Amino acid sequence: MKNIAYDQVRITGGFWKTKQEMLLNTSRSVYDRFAETYRFEAENVKGWLDRLLAEGSAASTDRPRVPHIFWDSDVAKWIEGTAYLIKIAQAWDLTPDQQDELLALEQICDDTIDTICENADENGYFNSHFQITEALGEARRFTDRSQHELYCAGHLIEAALAYQKATGKDKLLRQMIRYADYIDRVFHIENSAVFETPGHPELELALVKLAHFTEEEKYLDLAKWFIDHHGDSSKDIPPYDVFNNRYNQDEMPLRKRTTADGHSVRAMYLLSGMIDVAARYQDASLMDACRRLYDNVVNHRMYITGGIGSTHIGEAFTIDYHLPSRTAYSETCAAIALAQVCGRMIGASTANTGEDGPAVSVPLLSSYADTLERTMYNGILSGISLDGTGFFYENPLTIDLRFNDPNVSTKDKEYYPETTRRKVFSCSCCPPNVLRFYASLGDYLYSVDEDTLYVHQYMESEASLPSLKVCQKTDYPASGRINLTIRREDPAIRRIALRLPSWCEHFKLYLPYEQKNGYLYVDLSDETTIELDLGMPIRFVSADPRVHDALGKVAVSRGPVIYALEGKDQPDIDIHRFLIDPSAGASPGPVLSGFLLPSIEAEGVLPLPYEDSAAGDLFPGGDRDTELYRSFDPSAFRKVRVRLIPYYAFANRGSSDLTVWIRVK
Amino acid sequence: MKNIAYDQVRITGGFWKTKQEMLLNTSRSVYDRFAETYRFEAENVKGWLDRLLAEGSAASTDRPRVPHIFWDSDVAKWIEGTAYLIKIAQAWDLTPDQQDELLALEQICDDTIDTICENADENGYFNSHFQITEALGEARRFTDRSQHELYCAGHLIEAALAYQKATGKDKLLRQMIRYADYIDRVFHIENSAVFETPGHPELELALVKLAHFTEEEKYLDLAKWFIDHHGDSSKDIPPYDVFNNRYNQDEMPLRKRTTADGHSVRAMYLLSGMIDVAARYQDASLMDACRRLYDNVVNHRMYITGGIGSTHIGEAFTIDYHLPSRTAYSETCAAIALAQVCGRMIGASTANTGEDGPAVSVPLLSSYADTLERTMYNGILSGISLDGTGFFYENPLTIDLRFNDPNVSTKDKEYYPETTRRKVFSCSCCPPNVLRFYASLGDYLYSVDEDTLYVHQYMESEASLPSLKVCQKTDYPASGRINLTIRREDPAIRRIALRLPSWCEHFKLYLPYEQKNGYLYVDLSDETTIELDLGMPIRFVSADPRVHDALGKVAVSRGPVIYALEGKDQPDIDIHRFLIDPSAGASPGPVLSGFLLPSIEAEGVLPLPYEDSAAGDLFPGGDRDTELYRSFDPSAFRKVRVRLIPYYAFANRGSSDLTVWIRVK
Repeated sequence: MKNIAYDQVRITGGFWKTKQEMLLNTSRSVYDRFAETYRFEAENVKGWLDRLLAEGSAASTDRPRVPHIFWDSDVAKWIEGTAYLIKIAQAWDLTPDQQDELLALEQICDDTIDTICENADENGYFNSHFQITEALGEARRFTDRSQHELYCAGHLIEAALAYQKATGKDKLLRQMIRYADYIDRVFHIENSAVFETPGHPELELALVKLAHFTEEEKYLDLAKWFIDHHGDSSKDIPPYDVFNNRYNQDEMPLRKRTTADGHSVRAMYLLSGMIDVAARYQDASLMDACRRLYDNVVNHRMYITGGIGSTHIGEAFTIDYHLPSRTAYSETCAAIALAQVCGRMIGASTANTGEDGPAVSVPLLSSYADTLERTMYNGILSGISLDGTGFFYENPLTIDLRFNDPNVSTKDKEYYPETTRRKVFSCSCCPPNVLRFYASLGDYLYSVDEDTLYVHQYMESEASLPSLKVCQKTDYPASGRINLTIRREDPAIRRIALRLPSWCEHFKLYLPYEQKNGYLYVDLSDETTIELDLGMPIRFVSADPRVHDALGKVAVSRGPVIYALEGKDQPDIDIHRFLIDPSAGASPGPVLSGFLLPSIEAEGVLPLPYEDSAAGDLFPGGDRDTELYRSFDPSAFRKVRVRLIPYYAFANRGSSDLTVWIRVK
Repeated sequence: MKNIAYDQVRITGGFWKTKQEMLLNTSRSVYDRFAETYRFEAENVKGWLDRLLAEGSAASTDRPRVPHIFWDSDVAKWIEGTAYLIKIAQAWDLTPDQQDELLALEQICDDTIDTICENADENGYFNSHFQITEALGEARRFTDRSQHELYCAGHLIEAALAYQKATGKDKLLRQMIRYADYIDRVFHIENSAVFETPGHPELELALVKLAHFTEEEKYLDLAKWFIDHHGDSSKDIPPYDVFNNRYNQDEMPLRKRTTADGHSVRAMYLLSGMIDVAARYQDASLMDACRRLYDNVVNHRMYITGGIGSTHIGEAFTIDYHLPSRTAYSETCAAIALAQVCGRMIGASTANTGEDGPAVSVPLLSSYADTLERTMYNGILSGISLDGTGFFYENPLTIDLRFNDPNVSTKDKEYYPETTRRKVFSCSCCPPNVLRFYASLGDYLYSVDEDTLYVHQYMESEASLPSLKVCQKTDYPASGRINLTIRREDPAIRRIALRLPSWCEHFKLYLPYEQKNGYLYVDLSDETTIELDLGMPIRFVSADPRVHDALGKVAVSRGPVIYALEGKDQPDIDIHRFLIDPSAGASPGPVLSGFLLPSIEAEGVLPLPYEDSAAGDLFPGGDRDTELYRSFDPSAFRKVRVRLIPYYAFANRGSSDLTVWIRVK
């Protein structure tokens, strides 16, 4: 199966067109914040060193003395995302101002690429942190796996490939090929670096992309070499140490892993590389490990939003079914990484899953696209504000503002996630990652294999291949009605497979179909028109009861979108005290400004604080009405109606209480 | 109102007689553990210094170089508790072995007192930590409020008074009077110490006791001086710092305080001293503050077990209604301190509460004895094992053993309380505190004022005053049937007031009575026999819904005793997943060995893990049976019966899952 790439797919309207257009704000805002925090300046290594020399001891106190180890990756992801944006915007009706803006962004990319290329070593090495620390006689290159050195290289390779594909300009790509050759020599051929595999995976998947583009087998071999050697250098680090082998994805050889552990972004970036390598080498044991890890994440360690990472400590997975809502880490980048895993799993699948060995249970094919849809509408989208310029690094499922009280939380005390969106973070991986993910969203809609066109995601769009053209008309997910027109150029493409989302309860399709692997297979003629209606049911969803944090609670969803109670919409109600009544149903409410999808109205009860309640007055006249504990009285409540909003829109009206999981009355 | 002291009250049978007899084990075990951890050796300051000198650089690595700042208080509380035990055991039928043991314990007390007196400075100063560090040219006395120096002095004063009362031997008391005079001179008269008030309150209440015994006003004045000056030396410490002014009970002048904040033991020891001083000086504004703080604790910040302290960070109170079960700190010593507060509030009350000013709402008189009973049967008693030798410092309301996984908890990671009882801790304040509390439990049973005998607690006992003798026959809390015989010597005592516990739903009393302030007032003749039956109802209790952690849940209680689900009793059930059905009722079950009170059997349902459930199979044949999230189906459960045990008995059969709050079906 081959995924149709974003540059052959146009998102032509609806929800995601609006979101993609918003990315113009995102690219500019992220650039501005990165520029004012010296990230772009740092790419001029020589200039930075000259300035240090000139300033001497009068150095600025505001600017860090040497660039942060992450900064090159921040710039790289911004270039990559902006490249996708430049490409997709070519098909848009742009205003003159927007056209100027795109040209300006492209100019920034060109200038930055010039700077990087001027400052790279002759052998291709480029890393602003290490080049500067080396010149200052401090840290040396390739001596410390934890310094994100190969991670930055991987992101620069991805940026170079994206920019070449979007603009045809290959200056950065040629530079990064030299760098990749240098890494190959040092790590693989000479094996002379102090460490063996990246502490933060990313380079592996970038090398596979590079191999694909250059058709150079050696980059694939290098990626495989890294994959094969993760786990070799395990050190005796106590399990209680945050930065242990699990954190570094180095606990054991990857083929032996059965659970997704440690730093969740690292785990998923590495899994992406593993899938790529397993698929290219037809490596069954590695693919088995990939399926096991995917299954472990999606069926045991994933929030209902598609977020992953249950603790901020080590930004890590914890154990099966441990999915705390309030202290959820659920980093935006981790959900993006999971989406990338899903896309790769689709690309690595055959229609007839389950045939390549009984060792591992093979997920239903549609699971990958289901999970991708889950992340896309929830755990990733919550990471960016409605205007495209405010971000969350963590995406909690519950916010109780009372717990921000310094007597309870933060700093030296208990940890709770931030409740206010920010324009930039000191570790600012998420903002450009959201940019590049949504700008290349077209990557995840369609696949083809030898005889079938797969429709994984529903959105107003067109795809164009030599063998076929597909036009999808829909207002999904406002409704579940989808109209598909497929014009076939190659009669080998004999059918279309339409994903039946896991949330779909009833669908309408008035053509003959076969249901298999979570898809509806319909035969194609040279021109076929298909009307599919998936409905858009509002559902009360519960978690496996082993998820103790969600026990006795439901979440409300509408189609793929998870909803949440936010304090803003019910200022008189303590939302954490509200008990929902699923038997009373729920109905769509108004579309709030900028929210794009309807709110949901539901009913339930609010248990009364004991001082308001008449119950338990054993001693009339006595001052017992503030007692904390009383005989259970299920009737001591008042009925209330509440409004839920799409989870992705939380904290767009300032900090507010929030909850996804709602106790059932 | 005057509380009748423990040495005029005999606990003659039943639950508490058994517990008091167990304290022989406790005294010996705590002594052995303290001796082997050098605590008793440290009292020989000169010997310790001689050894250090002799060892030179070859010093033992096992033994700390200098005694810990807490150690003197550990020894003092052990002497105090053992003194009470020696006194109450005089009335017991002892075996010859037990008699020998008591003599041996008294000999240890005598020897230790000799050592302390030999090592004290001429001016009375005794502190093993500071005398040794001073001799070594290191830390100096009275320079650092955080070093528990005056706290140790307070406990030594309490020990000296207890030992004098129990044995008539006043050697330690004479020594401690000299020390108290020295403290008075340095802190009060000369005001020459570096700090003004104790960082860890305790001395205040000890000084009031000393003043009472010696009839020396100056100790009371010194106590008041400290009380008046707490809050004077507030420093500019950020609120996020754990060891801030709140922690040290120094945020503001005590009369201005409205909430109980900071370190919970410190807050309650200080409140004890405040009540004592307010009562002795008839200080209405200080008593108002005491009532406000009591109300804040009991009606807003107290666990259902009577435990207090919602976070391990700073061992502190947090905010109203923040009572997390799993990370409850709920230190044993804090519940003891709350019980002491209750006893003092009773002693400071008049029968006609509410008359001394409308500024503060005055708690119902019975509230104090209710709270005391709550701590006595639950949050304190859980701190000691059934055999009297194993202890908890923290008393969580929920234990989920899965969270001890190093991927989730402890050390650098998230914090969870210990799940196994220990014989001694490095900070071992709780074990001797439990000893002294339960050995002097008789202090809390009865009070008299000018015309009324108050019965606050029900247990098989006799009290003897010149004015009256009372004999209480009961198997309480096995049942609620109580038989009281009162022989009156002084006709001024015209009535008896019987507390009606807050948990009591129906009572039987076939004599004329007046109900007021939570007590039943019955007129006395020269010899009166009263039959009172309070019942012993099993109840489902809920928390004020603002306690989010307990929302939608109930606890099960029987009379004053809070029950809990422990994993040991239902090995096939995940107790954290169990949903109880209050409408199915609950009934007493067998008395487990050593548990003294019946277990309780209840019914409910266990939601099925999704892999066992037939629901949600939208795609027959597809591998969807481990999906985490599904449409809510309230019928996907199986019925189960569970057994609950008294909370105080948890973790007596090894580590186990535990929960007090149980979700309602």
